[in-house]
Order: sequence, then structure tokens, then C-alpha cells
Amino acid sequence: MSGAPKTIVTVAELRTIIALWRGHGDKIALVPTMGALHEGHLSLVRLAKKNADKVVVSIFVNPAQFAPHEDLATYPRDEAGDMEKLQALGTDLVFAPAGTEMYPPDFSTHIEVTELTNGLCGRSRPHFFGGVATVVAKLFLQCLPDMAIFGEKDYQQLLVIRRMARDLDIPVNVLGGPIIRERDGLAMSSRNAYLTKDERARAPLLFKTVTRIAKALSQDGEISEHIQSGRAALADAGFDVDYLEVRNADDLTPLAGSVAEPARVFAAALLGKTRLIDNVAVPEKK
Amino acid sequence: MSGAPKTIVTVAELRTIIALWRGHGDKIALVPTMGALHEGHLSLVRLAKKNADKVVVSIFVNPAQFAPHEDLATYPRDEAGDMEKLQALGTDLVFAPAGTEMYPPDFSTHIEVTELTNGLCGRSRPHFFGGVATVVAKLFLQCLPDMAIFGEKDYQQLLVIRRMARDLDIPVNVLGGPIIRERDGLAMSSRNAYLTKDERARAPLLFKTVTRIAKALSQDGEISEHIQSGRAALADAGFDVDYLEVRNADDLTPLAGSVAEPARVFAAALLGKTRLIDNVAVPEKK
Repeated sequence: MSGAPKTIVTVAELRTIIALWRGHGDKIALVPTMGALHEGHLSLVRLAKKNADKVVVSIFVNPAQFAPHEDLATYPRDEAGDMEKLQALGTDLVFAPAGTEMYPPDFSTHIEVTELTNGLCGRSRPHFFGGVATVVAKLFLQCLPDMAIFGEKDYQQLLVIRRMARDLDIPVNVLGGPIIRERDGLAMSSRNAYLTKDERARAPLLFKTVTRIAKALSQDGEISEHIQSGRAALADAGFDVDYLEVRNADDLTPLAGSVAEPARVFAAALLGKTRLIDNVAVPEKK
Repeated sequence: MSGAPKTIVTVAELRTIIALWRGHGDKIALVPTMGALHEGHLSLVRLAKKNADKVVVSIFVNPAQFAPHEDLATYPRDEAGDMEKLQALGTDLVFAPAGTEMYPPDFSTHIEVTELTNGLCGRSRPHFFGGVATVVAKLFLQCLPDMAIFGEKDYQQLLVIRRMARDLDIPVNVLGGPIIRERDGLAMSSRNAYLTKDERARAPLLFKTVTRIAKALSQDGEISEHIQSGRAALADAGFDVDYLEVRNADDLTPLAGSVAEPARVFAAALLGKTRLIDNVAVPEKK
């Protein structure tokens, strides 16, 4: 027997254990992941440990959020490494269901969130947020945790999930954890493993660009101007920019002119075959 | 103070009371309605009383399940009568939220159930089942009852809700209650109030027709033949038939030829301006 965290694969087992914990009055946190865990995920598990008595980490690479041309088949997997990392953090339970446990053959229910998904990643990945909302609702209702924790790297996803949970009255507190970055600023992501050595060296420019724009806007200047020069810098470095935008941080309304509300800068770009995303808050004007 | 059942209008109040009951180990049943209660609804409340310790009846005319041309504005309402009837049955709690409690201005989540909704009422009322699935998921998650009870008169709705709850892992047992009929066979429905005296006299033909088809199929014969003569009989009596079909009772697969599985006969027709629906099981062959 290794000391790996207890791992279960069925909803029935999950509910049995959760009911036991509930009986003891434990506060429960869920950290949904697709595995291939890095420091970004681990920071969310730490946040969960700090706020709850019991921490469940789910590992499920959700087919419903990948389009046919996307990277479902090659998405990084590292079960042994994941277990080692989760054990080191004192994770109480790992829930790793098979596809058939989540989606029986006659599965036919789909959740769609509108408004928040109109732009940014929702434009270039029209399947994505519906697939995420559906699987996350399922995980919430399988586990019924007090809180669930998601990374701010997928900031739009965090808002979509929070809205979905509020709209459907799922009794869960959806918390966001800050983006964890490599030393050179690159936001941690399982997909960074796809980058060639040369691409990896250029990748931090995405963070540098959104940060430069955020700083500039906190001081002065017109959004479109800074966006334009940011796009140019990324294109010069070989990024194929999907979007580079400034939006309201609460409801993702697109912003133009000068910034006068809580705002964030959002970017997505292809570097070679790897899609990178990032976002930063615009610091408040002094 | 009248002896009417306690009525609340907010989710917060509902959750407080449910938590109290849960603390006592009570089993809780929810009966979702749109008010204008008749014996059909009351039979569901009685079924709930029999199976649970506490019964919550929700009354909410859900705008999301009406198309713009449908009868949302004129849908029958009878709050005083509803309360009297619910009191007589010993209903523990009535939950009657306002529209804004259910749908805040930035509400943006929608649940869609496919497959089961492809035909029957799903064809002529494309908004309907999405609106129903979304509001019922909300009611389930606001209340988190052990069981919820729906009438078999809306048989397709019952299956859609059961599928939705299973697919999203909502921990609720969805039970169906048998159709309650007037003496002459007409299925009870709030919309029967729309019928003129003359229409009311002709209305039972819908039940007679589906019953005749079901009996015939339990003995012998070809589905299409019986359907054809049934359609003719209804048309002769002034019904504008929307559908008259035989389908598998479990998954609503359309059936043809002779019946060899659990089957039901389903009908919907306009009589004047009133849309009537009905369904009966095909008795098993001896």
C-alpha cells in the first residue's frame, strides 16, 4: 500500500463518503481538475485545505468541452505524478470517474450559459463553456460541497461557473484562486507541455503584453491604442492572436475609451500549435 | 389568522425551513405546480403526504416555458382557492416565489434535454421542455427534496424531468402520479377552464380515442391503421390534431407495426383555442 490519497471512481462511493463527513459536521471543498496537475492546481488545493475540513479533488478529462478538432486525445495525463502531488498536500479524496460513469449512453442533458460566454474564449471555442457548465454542475451535484475552487487563469470560466451555480441555485460557494506563474511570468497550464523549447522561450510575452496594457490603462490612455500596440508586439513575436481585449471584471462587458471600472485585460493566442491564455486586473487609478 | 398553510416567497426562507426539517430527520417531498389546482394536483399532494414527512407545494407560473404566442397572460390563477385546497390536505409549506426571485435580471443559464424532446409536445412547443427543465432544476436545488411528484398527464414532461435529474446527478427521486379524470374521462387540466360548454361536451373524445387505440393494440392489429381511424374520428368531431402516436413508454421511441413492448398512446389536439393532451398505457397482451 502506498500512502496515496483514497481514490474512488463512482458517484455512489463519493456520496457515501461525503455523507459520513457531513455526519461529522465537516466543511467540504471540491477542486475540479482535468489532471496533469501543476503548481496552479496545487495552489487551489492549498486554498481548499485552508478553508475546509475535507478536500476532494476530481480528475476527469471532460470530452464534452473539447471540439472534434481540439486536443482531447493528446491532453496531458500523469496519474502517478498527480497522486504523488496530491498526497503531499494531504488531499482527503480523489474522485476519478470513467467517462461512462459521467455520461451514460442515453445521456441527453446540456447546460448553456449565455451573455458571459458571448466573447473571448466563447467565440473561438463555441462548445467549451456548455461542456464545462454541464460537467461542473454534475460534479457539484454529485459532491454537494460547501465550496468549489477554480483558478483565475480561466477567468471567464470562473465567472461562467459562478453564474451557472447562482442561476440554478446550486448551494455552493464558488471561489477563485490567483494565477500561478513560472519565474518568467508564463501562466502555468497543463498545455504548456506542448510548447517547443523555442516557443517556451517566447511564451512569456503574452503575460508581459497584458501586464503592460493593464499598467498603461491604470495611468492613462485609450484602450484601443494600447490594444493595437499589444497585438502588434505579439504578432511580431510569432503569436497568432485570437483576442486581446479589456473587459469589465464582473460581467465581461467589453470596454472602450478609457477605463473607469474594475477591468481586466484578457488574451488568447496560438504559439505554434499551442493555445495560450492569460489575464490580469487593471490596477485601480490612484 | 386563517389556517392556510405557511406560505413563503424567498429561497432563503425555504432553505431555512428545509434545514430545520432535515435536522429532525424528516423525509421531504416537493410537488411543483403552476397553481389553479384541481384534483389532479391534489392527488399528487396526497401521494406526497403518503411517502414523506413534510410536503412542499410550489406555485409558480413559469414564463420560461411559454412561447410568446402562448397563454402565459391568461393562464388560470386562483390563489385563494389553491390555499383552501392545500390546507384541507395538510400541506406543510407553500413556496410561491415572484418572477424576480426565480429569474434575476442577468439570469443566463438554460438547461436543454435532447432525445426525449424530439417529438410529441417538443415538436409543436419547442420552448417548452427547456423552460420546464430549467425551472424544475432550480426548484429541486432550492428545496433539495428526497422526492418530487409530477402527474402522468404530462407524461413526456415526467420522463424529461426524470432524465434531467439523473443526467445532472440531482439527488431526488422523481415519482409519477396517475392521471385523474372527470367522470366522462376528460383528463383534468387547468386549461379545461378555457373550454366553452359545447367544447367541454366534445372534449372526452380525446380520452375515448386513445383508450380505443390502446385496447385495440393490446389485442391485435397494426398501429398505423388504428391511428388513422383515431385521427379521422377526432377530426370529425372538430379537433385539430397536433399528434396521435404510439411510443415506447420508457424512452418515447416511435413505434410502428404491431406493439411488442411497453407502449403508450399519446395525443394532443386543439379544440377551439384550447390545447388538450392525454395519454394511456397499452395494456399488456395476454
